[in-house]
Amino acid sequence: MSIVIIRQDDKIELWKKALQEAAPDIKVYSYLEEHPVDEIDVVLVWKHPKGTIAKYPNLKYIACSGAGVDFIFEDETAPTNIPITRVVDTMLASDMSEYVIAAIFSHIKRFYEYKINQIKSLWNPKQYHRIADYTVGILGLGALGAVLAKDLVRFGFKTQGWSNSRKEIPEVTAFAGQEELGEFLAMSEILVCLLPLTDETSGILNKELFKQLPKGAFVINAARGGHLVDKDLIEMLDNEHLSGATLDVFHQEPLSSGHPFWKHEKIHITPHYASVSDTASVVPQIIENYHRMQRGESLLNLVSTEKGY
Amino acid sequence: MSIVIIRQDDKIELWKKALQEAAPDIKVYSYLEEHPVDEIDVVLVWKHPKGTIAKYPNLKYIACSGAGVDFIFEDETAPTNIPITRVVDTMLASDMSEYVIAAIFSHIKRFYEYKINQIKSLWNPKQYHRIADYTVGILGLGALGAVLAKDLVRFGFKTQGWSNSRKEIPEVTAFAGQEELGEFLAMSEILVCLLPLTDETSGILNKELFKQLPKGAFVINAARGGHLVDKDLIEMLDNEHLSGATLDVFHQEPLSSGHPFWKHEKIHITPHYASVSDTASVVPQIIENYHRMQRGESLLNLVSTEKGY
Repeated sequence: MSIVIIRQDDKIELWKKALQEAAPDIKVYSYLEEHPVDEIDVVLVWKHPKGTIAKYPNLKYIACSGAGVDFIFEDETAPTNIPITRVVDTMLASDMSEYVIAAIFSHIKRFYEYKINQIKSLWNPKQYHRIADYTVGILGLGALGAVLAKDLVRFGFKTQGWSNSRKEIPEVTAFAGQEELGEFLAMSEILVCLLPLTDETSGILNKELFKQLPKGAFVINAARGGHLVDKDLIEMLDNEHLSGATLDVFHQEPLSSGHPFWKHEKIHITPHYASVSDTASVVPQIIENYHRMQRGESLLNLVSTEKGY
Repeated sequence: MSIVIIRQDDKIELWKKALQEAAPDIKVYSYLEEHPVDEIDVVLVWKHPKGTIAKYPNLKYIACSGAGVDFIFEDETAPTNIPITRVVDTMLASDMSEYVIAAIFSHIKRFYEYKINQIKSLWNPKQYHRIADYTVGILGLGALGAVLAKDLVRFGFKTQGWSNSRKEIPEVTAFAGQEELGEFLAMSEILVCLLPLTDETSGILNKELFKQLPKGAFVINAARGGHLVDKDLIEMLDNEHLSGATLDVFHQEPLSSGHPFWKHEKIHITPHYASVSDTASVVPQIIENYHRMQRGESLLNLVSTEKGY
């Protein structure tokens, strides 16, 4: 009975230590160290190397240590007959909300433009804009999008959201389904993508979608690089239909040094850090589920394999 | 009976038109055009050329079209025996608040650093910070500072303010007077200057004050360039006592192209645009006061010549 941690960043020991301190009764291994493969009943994964989950014959479930599980479905060797759990973390949601609001403020107050002017020693005041001037549209009103929507309303933004099934959030205009997507986009002067990455949403941020936004719209993608068609974004920025974009996620991370996004004055890059799972707030969920599994109880935050999130 | 507009930017005609549309009964001139000097009873000024106010022998009062009147006191030729009015504009206050909050978000979410990294095609994620991690200290709790303080509380920042006379604002820790300044500074991880520029506050943002801030503090000056001792800021940034500064105001504006602020990676420049008087919201105040003067009533938003604001 034990957990193995599989991830490719430098945080394995951090997670191992946090789990062991919180639950000394549970054996925890790094997938890089010597460990009894047959005894592993849970893999705790984040962007694992493909094929590594399949090595464990007695898995009871797959635990994702983040909110997005798309990378698990991308590994065709991962077992499909056991449950997958993800993290639903209020900290993740409020961090994401703060990130998006920071990006919105940088846009409406022209901070991005002025930083570029500063590099040119250029004093060039322009009319600024106000919170009240904008309607923000959120693609995806799930655990993250709903918290952002409430914060935007609290901060005074006109706020609307789109989701597959209609969500009711006070003072947020709710759109649902393909048939209402166009109407939602036509009103979104700032578009924020917080969708899960699935077959349906992959590449959704493309030329056809951007064309339905009002001229001068600003785009924020803090979901997954796979949502965006990179060349379509550049085209719609260069023809001035879009005024700019803040991107935290990319098809390949780190973003390759030759990628045209780096040098584009209307694209603002952050290194996939908007919202990072924090062991302190996530570990209790992982342990709670492990004990539920041991007691034969149903797991929390189960992923729908058919919806993909 | 008429008003003359004296300012050196390109907005004279804009103000003239706005005043004439709002009050066709009042004669309005630009100081650059032919006009009857003896008939002028009000000058509407914004950073006028020194000496120009003194040309009018029959002035009843001096109307400042902005919130800060320091430039009037700096003109020793301006009459001192007539009232001075300034603008107290809720729009100015909310615009200022939005600007400062945008600067705070850019700092705590490291947007400034990531923009500089982007220019170097550098992917370098760092731990981000949260609203809850910071105490924001506001120097000056007047018409502008009080609105900012309320907004910061609403956004979830720990907020404290310092002013000459103690101000009571819900959930804002209030400090007052020289004897409480040190205690206020010691807690201010982000320091915002919204003081009026007077003999007492000129150069208040200096080495001795910065040393009293916690190590790594961030400074935002959106008041007047005269509050800041430029070389002291650079010294305290370079010795890493301060982590950065956002500046909207400067001793000389536009900031001279050779000024070291332009090239300093920890200084973030905006071109004095945080909060700009908007004719639509200010003109009614100007006209109301003009009519009060005509009816012999007391004027609104009078400046205290002894306090200097």
